[in-house]
Amino acid sequence: MEIRLVQGSDYYVISPLINDWWNGRKMSDMLPKLFFDHFKNTSFIAEEEGEIIGFLIGFLSQSYSNEAYIHFVGIHPEHRGKGIGRQLYNQFFDVIKQHGRSIIRCVTSPVNKDSIAYHTKMGFEIEQGDSINQDKVLFIKCLT
Amino acid sequence: MEIRLVQGSDYYVISPLINDWWNGRKMSDMLPKLFFDHFKNTSFIAEEEGEIIGFLIGFLSQSYSNEAYIHFVGIHPEHRGKGIGRQLYNQFFDVIKQHGRSIIRCVTSPVNKDSIAYHTKMGFEIEQGDSINQDKVLFIKCLT
Repeated sequence: MEIRLVQGSDYYVISPLINDWWNGRKMSDMLPKLFFDHFKNTSFIAEEEGEIIGFLIGFLSQSYSNEAYIHFVGIHPEHRGKGIGRQLYNQFFDVIKQHGRSIIRCVTSPVNKDSIAYHTKMGFEIEQGDSINQDKVLFIKCLT
Repeated sequence: MEIRLVQGSDYYVISPLINDWWNGRKMSDMLPKLFFDHFKNTSFIAEEEGEIIGFLIGFLSQSYSNEAYIHFVGIHPEHRGKGIGRQLYNQFFDVIKQHGRSIIRCVTSPVNKDSIAYHTKMGFEIEQGDSINQDKVLFIKCLT
């Protein structure tokens, strides 16, 4: 398994897969091609024998000079539990540190219990949101 | 009418409106809160007497140091044809120029004939895409 930076063309491979990877939830609208084109230097693909088995799409916050944001992480259902996610996150953490960022935010849906457990295991903490935003779990992690 | 920078809280006002503004098309999944939080300095709200009547969400490309991208522009149906869109675009052009960017990209759906006509009027050119990306019209504009 190797990890490399995202390319624009990865969109055409990943976009048709993600509803399946998310157990039939309609997720692909949330990941337009712009993320594959304009955030290449902070987004990563995990590949095995030429097949994409995982990805992480993240970016440096333009508003907050100390922050980075992870928008989407997906692992092929048959390749879960092998530490691929952890490698993708660690790669992201390393790169954003090089850009002087130490705070990482991401959100997940309250229905996605696996995601909540996973982020907690990865050292993210649940942040108290504004009272309006009840439909999202907000995560924050500070790199030391 | 005044134009100001986006705030995170604008998401809660705009998100419930946009499917209506887009004539019932399901668009709100394409505009998650992250755009209101992390691209504040290149995203704008048009407001009249405290009511949001238009918005433009754009960002500086992280991959291409000369490029900026416009993700979403919406104008309240009753306030179209008054030049609000033009003012939002011009505000965006001014700000990205200050960041040393001169190329702007955006995409629209082939079904959205109004959007295609509007971008052409605003000086965008249609770019030949890769053959796979048939479901999008790709626009480019170079600031002089």
